[in-house]
Formats: sequence, C-alpha cells, structure tokens
Amino acid sequence: MSYSNFTNMKTHTEYLWFNTSNKIDFINITDKINSIITQSGIQDGLVLINPMHITAAVFVNDNESGLMYDFKSMLKQLVPEHLSGDDYHHNRTGEDNAYAHLWRTLMGHQVTMAVTNSQLDLGPWEQIFYAEFDGHRRKRVLVKIIGR
Amino acid sequence: MSYSNFTNMKTHTEYLWFNTSNKIDFINITDKINSIITQSGIQDGLVLINPMHITAAVFVNDNESGLMYDFKSMLKQLVPEHLSGDDYHHNRTGEDNAYAHLWRTLMGHQVTMAVTNSQLDLGPWEQIFYAEFDGHRRKRVLVKIIGR
Amino acid sequence: MSYSNFTNMKTHTEYLWFNTSNKIDFINITDKINSIITQSGIQDGLVLINPMHITAAVFVNDNESGLMYDFKSMLKQLVPEHLSGDDYHHNRTGEDNAYAHLWRTLMGHQVTMAVTNSQLDLGPWEQIFYAEFDGHRRKRVLVKIIGR
Repeated sequence: MSYSNFTNMKTHTEYLWFNTSNKIDFINITDKINSIITQSGIQDGLVLINPMHITAAVFVNDNESGLMYDFKSMLKQLVPEHLSGDDYHHNRTGEDNAYAHLWRTLMGHQVTMAVTNSQLDLGPWEQIFYAEFDGHRRKRVLVKIIGR
Repeated sequence: MSYSNFTNMKTHTEYLWFNTSNKIDFINITDKINSIITQSGIQDGLVLINPMHITAAVFVNDNESGLMYDFKSMLKQLVPEHLSGDDYHHNRTGEDNAYAHLWRTLMGHQVTMAVTNSQLDLGPWEQIFYAEFDGHRRKRVLVKIIGR
Repeated sequence: MSYSNFTNMKTHTEYLWFNTSNKIDFINITDKINSIITQSGIQDGLVLINPMHITAAVFVNDNESGLMYDFKSMLKQLVPEHLSGDDYHHNRTGEDNAYAHLWRTLMGHQVTMAVTNSQLDLGPWEQIFYAEFDGHRRKRVLVKIIGR
C-alpha cells in the first residue's frame, strides 16, 4: 500500500507591518517574502502578496532608484495629488488621500508569484516592492502561500 | 496509522451573473464572495475573482461613493469614452466600447484574495467591487476557490 | 477504508521563451497555455502566467487587431516612449526603456486564470496575450499550475 500519490497540501499565512516615515515610499520586500517561504516549508506553489489597506500597492519591477522616481512622477502627472473636494469627491469626506486610492489601482494593487524549489521563482531583475502612498500610519500586507 | 499529514485539497467554482441598468456601474460583491466561500467548505486558501468579459473589471477598494465617482472621473480623463474609429481602431469594427476594454485594463482587471478561517481575509476597508464599463447585457464573473 | 476524501495535489511549472522582432508586440498565448494545462494533467485549479522580465506584461482581452493598436496608442499618450534622462531618471543608467517598465505596470503585469475540466475557464472573448514592450531579446514567461 503506497501513499506516494497523496501529496500533502499546505497553506501558510503571515502579516507584514509597515509604518513609513515618508508619505510616499517604495520598500523592497523580496527578502522578507523569501524568508516567509522558507519558514512555511512549502516547496512548490503560489504566494499571494496583498496590501490590506487601500492606499498602498504591491508590485514587481527592477530595483533601480531612478525607476522609483519615474513611477512617482508618472503617477503625479496622470493623477494629481492635492486637489480639493471639487475635483476628488472622496476628499469631501474629510480625507485628502483620494489620489492614493487611485494610484494604488493604477499600480496593479497586488501580485501573485510562483514558489519553486522553496524560493520565489524570479527572473533576473524581478523584485517585489511595497508601495506606500499615504504613510505615517501602521499598515499590513498579507502573505498567503499555498502549495506542497 | 495516522493520516493527519494528508490534507484534503478542495476546489470550488461558481459563476456570478450581472446585468446592470447603468452603462457604467460599480457593485460591491464582498458578501456574495463570502457566501460562496462558506458554501465551498474551504477554510484556508486563495480565491480568484475574474470577470469573464473583457469590458468589465474586479477590483478592491474602499466602499465610499465619492471614490467611485473619482474612479469614473479618472478613467474618463485618461481615456475618453466616445471617440470615433479615427481614434479608436477597435470602433472600426462597429463597436463603440473601445474605452471599456482600456478602462478595465487600467483598473487591474481581476483580483486574487486570501481565504482564512472560512472567510475573506480583508483589511479594515477592503471591499471587492465588480466594475461594469459596458452594461445593459448579461455578464459573468468566475469565482474559483482553491484550498483545504 | 476509503481514501476518496484525499485529493492529490499537483503543481506544474513551465517557462515560455519569446524573442520578438518588433520592439513592441502583442502575442496571443492562449493555445500555448491550454497545451501546458493538458500536459500537466491538472483538471481543476489556478494557473499563474507571469512575465519574468520587467518590461513585459501578460494581460487578458479581446483578440482584435484594432484593439491592440488602441492599447499601444493609449500607452504612448499616457506615458511617452522616448524621453531623455531629464524626464525619466531610469534612463540616466544608460537604458532607454523607462517607458517599458511603466507601461507594463499600467497593463496589470500578470494574470491568474482558472482551470476547469482540464482547460482554461474562459469567457467568450477572453484571450491571453504576452505584451512585449522592449523586444529584440530573449525573455521568459513563467506558467505555474496548481490544482488537482
């Protein structure tokens, strides 16, 4: 009697906390995600990295500081930061962060990455970033790994 | 003899139907997704929520009506709705919904969320929305849950 | 004694290679993804399709050539291609592809799709595209299937 066909399915959940001193910030979290994968014992599967706050994003790109400047510059040109409630109806609620909700959506908001051989299966320049668009407060990012 | 290491893997698939009376509309589907998770019996895993039509999107943000106005306003400013086939080549096919294909892409199109303790694992303001950009017709959203 | 409750969990990983002769190109990869699913033997689950290079994207839309023109046109209007390092700081590194990093982010970068009955579970017009924004070089796309 052999059970070799039955593969144990595992899931692992972790929450990362951030509290950036800059209102707008980009933080490379690739190493943190790899550490969590190691702890999970999962060798092969998928990892979802999802900001739990709606004025932040997680995205994948090159770890190059000029590029981070370009992302910020693009976002400011497409969707201006500081407009009154005349333009951003969300800001009629007393908030001033409508831009941050919109930016995080344009950035793609979340990523799902592959786990192979107990690590992130990344291309040569793929790095995972937490993008904070309305900082100075504690925020969580959910990391859920599912695999075998 | 113990089988406690063998975890049953489950999948569950459901299709939600929409037929909005507004051409452009945002519908909060968070409760519907949680009901499907409950029915699936899956306690821990991932749920993919994917519009099966290419002029609609699913996205996560705050349930605030001003913000929905701001999303629509942003999309209209970045990618105008009503342009002829001179500008939108897609509209040379007889369609007039090129903008809707483009908008749904800028909105991120789909989301994958975490299931923990038999419910969506959401931050304090995370809500899931169906975004219709070319309504007045029946459209489906696929919900696929995978986990244990 | 019955093991019918224990479902075998499978994962399958493949890498697709692209080397486009056009600098900017859109390639329909739907059939390739379906072939990989067939080979994997996985009947029900999720498939992640993730470009491993940060100047390319994978997205889902209608297979209509006018629409591909419209995507390119939208991207060029929102984020111009050829600007110097005065505008795009990334281009101060000697690169001239800052636009490609930004475009791929606006396009949503990656997709996760459902596998049902051993095939992609697609709506009537859903097709999967590889979007190359900085071609003339070999690039990989990761395909990871997870399911039962």
